Amino acid sequence: MINVTIWNEFVHENIHDEVKAVYPEGIHMALANGLQESGFAITTATLDQPEHGLSEGVLNQTDVLIWWGHMAHDRVSDEITARVVRRVQEGMGLIVLHSGHFSKPFKALMGTSCDLKWREAGEQEILWNVNPSHPIAEGIDASVILEHEEMYGEYFDIPTPDELVFISNFAGGEVFRSGCTFRRGRGKIFYFRPGHETYPTYYKPEIIKIIANGVKWAQPAAGSALQFGNVQPVRALNEVPVV
Amino acid sequence: MINVTIWNEFVHENIHDEVKAVYPEGIHMALANGLQESGFAITTATLDQPEHGLSEGVLNQTDVLIWWGHMAHDRVSDEITARVVRRVQEGMGLIVLHSGHFSKPFKALMGTSCDLKWREAGEQEILWNVNPSHPIAEGIDASVILEHEEMYGEYFDIPTPDELVFISNFAGGEVFRSGCTFRRGRGKIFYFRPGHETYPTYYKPEIIKIIANGVKWAQPAAGSALQFGNVQPVRALNEVPVV
Amino acid sequence: MINVTIWNEFVHENIHDEVKAVYPEGIHMALANGLQESGFAITTATLDQPEHGLSEGVLNQTDVLIWWGHMAHDRVSDEITARVVRRVQEGMGLIVLHSGHFSKPFKALMGTSCDLKWREAGEQEILWNVNPSHPIAEGIDASVILEHEEMYGEYFDIPTPDELVFISNFAGGEVFRSGCTFRRGRGKIFYFRPGHETYPTYYKPEIIKIIANGVKWAQPAAGSALQFGNVQPVRALNEVPVV
Amino acid sequence: MINVTIWNEFVHENIHDEVKAVYPEGIHMALANGLQESGFAITTATLDQPEHGLSEGVLNQTDVLIWWGHMAHDRVSDEITARVVRRVQEGMGLIVLHSGHFSKPFKALMGTSCDLKWREAGEQEILWNVNPSHPIAEGIDASVILEHEEMYGEYFDIPTPDELVFISNFAGGEVFRSGCTFRRGRGKIFYFRPGHETYPTYYKPEIIKIIANGVKWAQPAAGSALQFGNVQPVRALNEVPVV
Repeated sequence: MINVTIWNEFVHENIHDEVKAVYPEGIHMALANGLQESGFAITTATLDQPEHGLSEGVLNQTDVLIWWGHMAHDRVSDEITARVVRRVQEGMGLIVLHSGHFSKPFKALMGTSCDLKWREAGEQEILWNVNPSHPIAEGIDASVILEHEEMYGEYFDIPTPDELVFISNFAGGEVFRSGCTFRRGRGKIFYFRPGHETYPTYYKPEIIKIIANGVKWAQPAAGSALQFGNVQPVRALNEVPVV
Repeated sequence: MINVTIWNEFVHENIHDEVKAVYPEGIHMALANGLQESGFAITTATLDQPEHGLSEGVLNQTDVLIWWGHMAHDRVSDEITARVVRRVQEGMGLIVLHSGHFSKPFKALMGTSCDLKWREAGEQEILWNVNPSHPIAEGIDASVILEHEEMYGEYFDIPTPDELVFISNFAGGEVFRSGCTFRRGRGKIFYFRPGHETYPTYYKPEIIKIIANGVKWAQPAAGSALQFGNVQPVRALNEVPVV
Repeated sequence: MINVTIWNEFVHENIHDEVKAVYPEGIHMALANGLQESGFAITTATLDQPEHGLSEGVLNQTDVLIWWGHMAHDRVSDEITARVVRRVQEGMGLIVLHSGHFSKPFKALMGTSCDLKWREAGEQEILWNVNPSHPIAEGIDASVILEHEEMYGEYFDIPTPDELVFISNFAGGEVFRSGCTFRRGRGKIFYFRPGHETYPTYYKPEIIKIIANGVKWAQPAAGSALQFGNVQPVRALNEVPVV
Repeated sequence: MINVTIWNEFVHENIHDEVKAVYPEGIHMALANGLQESGFAITTATLDQPEHGLSEGVLNQTDVLIWWGHMAHDRVSDEITARVVRRVQEGMGLIVLHSGHFSKPFKALMGTSCDLKWREAGEQEILWNVNPSHPIAEGIDASVILEHEEMYGEYFDIPTPDELVFISNFAGGEVFRSGCTFRRGRGKIFYFRPGHETYPTYYKPEIIKIIANGVKWAQPAAGSALQFGNVQPVRALNEVPVV
């Protein structure tokens, strides 16, 4: 069974009525409910908990971490950020959602600004499947339509993704690389764009299906830790006289 | 004309006779001499200079920065590291040589540990050209032989390179992805493995040719700065009633 | 100087008044005129010439071949197709435009169906630059707007491109990977989507600029031919007793 | 259950005593025995059977096809080649082993010559795992040593692989990209280098484990067929007056 920890900064839902109306228990709970039937062992964590709910113990037990944050990125401590980054490098999967593009862990793992264009106009987003044999696209049709979403537009300042799974078309004219995979150390990362806090995106079955596929794809690979450092030759060296 | 700044921590050459014998003026001067005929405008900078020789003014005038460091990575300040990273993201090219794999700027740009296996046994390294139409391989034969080098072995903990140009075979049995390119923001990065401080690698014409090719490849692209932030629609939105 | 051969099937312009009105001398001549100021040595070739204008002599003198075809793909002989493919593998650059996605040489080089969705409704296409430091995007703004174009939509059945440079947004809701690079043997290939025969796309300066950039990027790399076949060891083998 | 068809040209084993001694029942039977415990439904097919054992019925029932051929590539009919290629494009997985690099289906899917350097000297090959979190590397150590193998050396004339999983070091000094993945249409392809007919490579558990991992990775993705052709807009087009 895959151990999933859903992290949400959980600020919008407490202070903005518009958001609370859509996600009364918080985005993390909507995700947890949606992912329930996938058979994951799910726990949640939020910013205001001790250590943001991400103690060493919690992270060591986590196979895949889902991250949603937006207005409080700078309240995530550098220590917890470094802990998340290290666990990803050790093999923990990471699903970064929507405005998590600007979160400290994602920026540290990418090495870029992760900046983009944006507009909040409730416009239509159509996600196109550009990698139909990828496990993250399993069971997903050629396109997924979201009637109202925030726009994110290119240039999205990320490293070239290892794999591109979804590209979005926005009614206002922009495109966006909305489903991207990356590997860092032993860990797999899936960035998935949709999920503005004022729209009911995370109640949509196709969106939950994609996130569930992402969790399965990102779970840690079996195998021992990586080996580094000083090593003996595998093959006997001839006596090579060094100049 | 391409403005190249060659940065060297310049510690080994001052304290180890064995290294001083090979690079009496420092690795940076050997590189500067070798690259002279390529027609670049070359300056050098070292760790012990104020701001490590990398003031805002110097970096703003630098098209491509070459980086060699090994035993004093932790003496590079976080402030200068952040400055180098930001300039790369803005478009400055970066050539990271040999033990620079563990330098602060490279690790920050990669988001991984950048760890590897190593052995110092003076063994033979053969670099194979696996991307013969790449500009960095221009004029380079199918292989380049270095009679004595330090071994670096896989797994090299980097993100999947955008392009792989050279793979090394070591006599002791290892392989290494020795020529790798990455893009971060508008900046291009070329990691090139050879160049242990006790071997005369940087006097070898093929090695200098590859570094010169790397400089040309990594020079900043023309064009205006990237645009981010809140934008108006390109195409008029229909009146979409938001729920 | 780069020797460019522009190949056009040149059928639409002869039989469809609507096309002739836009390209009275043929698409190849519009491209040749547009590219003139880039300083290339340009010749043209068309389907109805002997050997489709692509004799061994012509192809051997061609650094970069530009290809436009649509309604007469099956009239291109298998022999000429094989000749073009072999020259690309030897190092000739290839720029495939618009409906050339279904041409015999492109399909043979891709190994896929190269199929896609399409619609001819004169709708707006916006090309977004998703690789701003790539030479093919040099001097190109964040987006290029084409007021009227044929729509091409994903899934575009190509291998994962080595590099993705442009993504299109169509008013009708689709997206398309409109600027893609591939390497095959020593040859570089750039697929570029725009250019339906009924729209004046190839008179637009930004489109010509992108094609000119593509020609420069795709020109053959210097260097000797690739070496294959039976070889002696570089390093003396120990006497290894074979079981 | 995954339906695996193992195809072997089965010529060496019938005419060369040296090969018959290693694989008395044929390479296909050694592979079938080795893969048995993975729980696949395995059948075999050989060149001399009607339709080379690859009728429409057989291929339509095959989830993953394993291919070994060497001296009789040109006896594989163009019709069967086209059938295999089409099935891969539709979603059938394909594992190409060793000298299958020159097989007709692989060359047609790659679009390159697939040529390489080679030497038959019974030298040591060490495969290094350069993608430790990839499913094909699951359960595989940092390296796998083959005491005696044929050498294959770079430049290997293939398109840039989507993913690189193994790189080989040969005692004679060469390197080779020995484990490569590609996607073509809905189908996944894994090229895996080892397995010269005169060495007992396919009795080695790690090699069988990698091939079994490859089969699991390459199995067809769930989902409906791809959609192509003329389509209606997803989003109502404004009345755009075409010039």
